Amino acid sequence: MDQTPASDTVAVKRLPERGHYDAATIAEILDEALVCHVGLTTDDGPIVIPTLHARIGDQLLLHGSAASRLLRTARDQRICVTVSLIDGLVLARTAFHHSVNYRSVVIMGTPREITDLKEKDTVLDQLVERLIPGRMADLRPNNEKELRATSLLSLPLDEASAKIRTGGPNDDAEDYDLELWAGVVPMSTTYGEPITDPNMRMSVPTPSYASEYGRP
Amino acid sequence: MDQTPASDTVAVKRLPERGHYDAATIAEILDEALVCHVGLTTDDGPIVIPTLHARIGDQLLLHGSAASRLLRTARDQRICVTVSLIDGLVLARTAFHHSVNYRSVVIMGTPREITDLKEKDTVLDQLVERLIPGRMADLRPNNEKELRATSLLSLPLDEASAKIRTGGPNDDAEDYDLELWAGVVPMSTTYGEPITDPNMRMSVPTPSYASEYGRP
Repeated sequence: MDQTPASDTVAVKRLPERGHYDAATIAEILDEALVCHVGLTTDDGPIVIPTLHARIGDQLLLHGSAASRLLRTARDQRICVTVSLIDGLVLARTAFHHSVNYRSVVIMGTPREITDLKEKDTVLDQLVERLIPGRMADLRPNNEKELRATSLLSLPLDEASAKIRTGGPNDDAEDYDLELWAGVVPMSTTYGEPITDPNMRMSVPTPSYASEYGRP
Repeated sequence: MDQTPASDTVAVKRLPERGHYDAATIAEILDEALVCHVGLTTDDGPIVIPTLHARIGDQLLLHGSAASRLLRTARDQRICVTVSLIDGLVLARTAFHHSVNYRSVVIMGTPREITDLKEKDTVLDQLVERLIPGRMADLRPNNEKELRATSLLSLPLDEASAKIRTGGPNDDAEDYDLELWAGVVPMSTTYGEPITDPNMRMSVPTPSYASEYGRP
């Protein structure tokens, strides 16, 4: 496991013991999260846009409408992509030591736009399959119009870091005698019973990839 | 309800029908979410950092260690704060029309640092109470050392927009005859059974604000 940050920018400086730089830890967090937040520099300051992502090997794939500001601005510019999973609220003995359990990843880099239609088609299929494993087998192939209306960016994961907090509160020694409850309220993302589109023209059973949806 | 964007930067350009600019819609999303993503400009490009937030009136409060890069860099600089709630995966009849139901807010502005210790004390108490309603009554007051070790930033909400997608898939007319399931897999954040700190020195019942934790 590589525990050296790839750059000073992604190095975890505050509480460095929470920093992780190995590819497996970073991949696990990216794969569990569905949504990332992409930071761009614009003439009017930074802007942060939420979007779906999928990791394929050592690349993070971002996609969207060819008309979107995010994708038009992000290509060939240095961007930052941040993913965060919030695992719990940490209730400490003082307001000061209250905290959050989380797993986050920060990636810096310059994305490459995938413009070749054949490559785009293949990668978009992989992306959908990553987001909803099993779905691709039910879908017709993308057509050329759809491919041209979609932008696809590939961001290398070589400049990335993870930051993780787990466990209970860490209070100052003298506060452990205070008579109040301390602990963690766990948080997680849950997936509910699928809602069938009321505009269905035929009866098709809900697939298990929808009714049993979950992240790895 | 004001439906005019406060600036061109926060105006929703892609799918403008999803844009909302009234304070009530923006407040509701900010209040439900616990975590925001803050975008900053650095010499090495944009950086996006997840952190807790609380809305108090027409201000968004951000806090953290006085030593944190986020808070040192963000004060007196134009920043972007983005909050997103993901409500569902939208499974359409083609890969192209797959989507996500979400409610997001983007705020642009220059935060003011609250340095006056008395004001900081009052606002930090409000912030904790927003994050965990009921908790403050159990906590001892902050001491001066804790106040000095905490940075607190206040960002006005006057330049903000919300973007919301709800409902089922929107497919192209000719695809409704495809024989496959379409619909929405709902997503939400859930809070589990509290885990009492194993380092408790006395038995204190779990407070209802922890066992029945939920967002407004």
